[in-house]
Amino acid sequence: MRILSVDPSLRGTGFAILEEVGTRIRCLEYSVVKNHPKLSQEGCLIAIHEALVSAIDRHQPEALAIEKVIFVQSFATAIILGSARGVAVLAAAQKGLSIHEYPPKRVKQAVVGKGAASKDQVAFMIRALLGLTETPPSDAADALAIGLTHLRTISSPVPSKLLLRRK
Amino acid sequence: MRILSVDPSLRGTGFAILEEVGTRIRCLEYSVVKNHPKLSQEGCLIAIHEALVSAIDRHQPEALAIEKVIFVQSFATAIILGSARGVAVLAAAQKGLSIHEYPPKRVKQAVVGKGAASKDQVAFMIRALLGLTETPPSDAADALAIGLTHLRTISSPVPSKLLLRRK
Repeated sequence: MRILSVDPSLRGTGFAILEEVGTRIRCLEYSVVKNHPKLSQEGCLIAIHEALVSAIDRHQPEALAIEKVIFVQSFATAIILGSARGVAVLAAAQKGLSIHEYPPKRVKQAVVGKGAASKDQVAFMIRALLGLTETPPSDAADALAIGLTHLRTISSPVPSKLLLRRK
Repeated sequence: MRILSVDPSLRGTGFAILEEVGTRIRCLEYSVVKNHPKLSQEGCLIAIHEALVSAIDRHQPEALAIEKVIFVQSFATAIILGSARGVAVLAAAQKGLSIHEYPPKRVKQAVVGKGAASKDQVAFMIRALLGLTETPPSDAADALAIGLTHLRTISSPVPSKLLLRRK
């Protein structure tokens, strides 16, 4: 199974392509859509959409795993973050991918073993778990962590209350 | 000048096409993208994007006027509303439209004359101002009001502090 995972934000959307073959998970690509601070909001949204459509075309993943946002600093931030999230979900849905959401605590729990892990801890563990030759930037590490969470969740042999609701 | 105006929401995005010729403003189309309560969030986003791209292709507007969201009930609602807003802005930006935002109070002020007007008052005034043969549904009326605000703002001969910042 091949998936796209995304940690959306207007200026730095992290994304990754992960593939699970048997019990092995490998990373085919990770990247961050870095938008210049002076680029308009609509310019950022176009860049995010284009980058994800392009990654989907290159790798043909079956599903999107994306962070379920629970808390942000302000309503204004939530609207902007929601916009980035919306175009990411749109890109995947337009290409026929199924959509799966995971709350941040669940992602940290799955990757580091505790829900309150720091960004550095997540990046360090992601590097170790995927055998990467370098520590990925934190936005990409978050996307990789979301993808790992999805693959581990769907691979789990015994469905339990610990598993996330999938849409 | 021809514009698209949008009042975004996941289940009921109102939109309108308005045209200004000389001092006259007329409505070429208004509609609401009604998404079934059981349709998935991604299904709703696709429907909103498709409806707006289709309206842009039909009428070739130059600009998008959209509500600037300031307050919503919860962060979860803000993220969902932001998603709908994001795909609306994306559709317009992909088609080369310029993007203009107006806060709700400014829209009510421009259409009804007071910032605390009810939805019914907005719909009633929109019908009168545009000479419509029926009172539009409130989501469409809100979109029409945003469009009228934009056209009146850019038509105003004397720029002043009352005019909105345009991106």
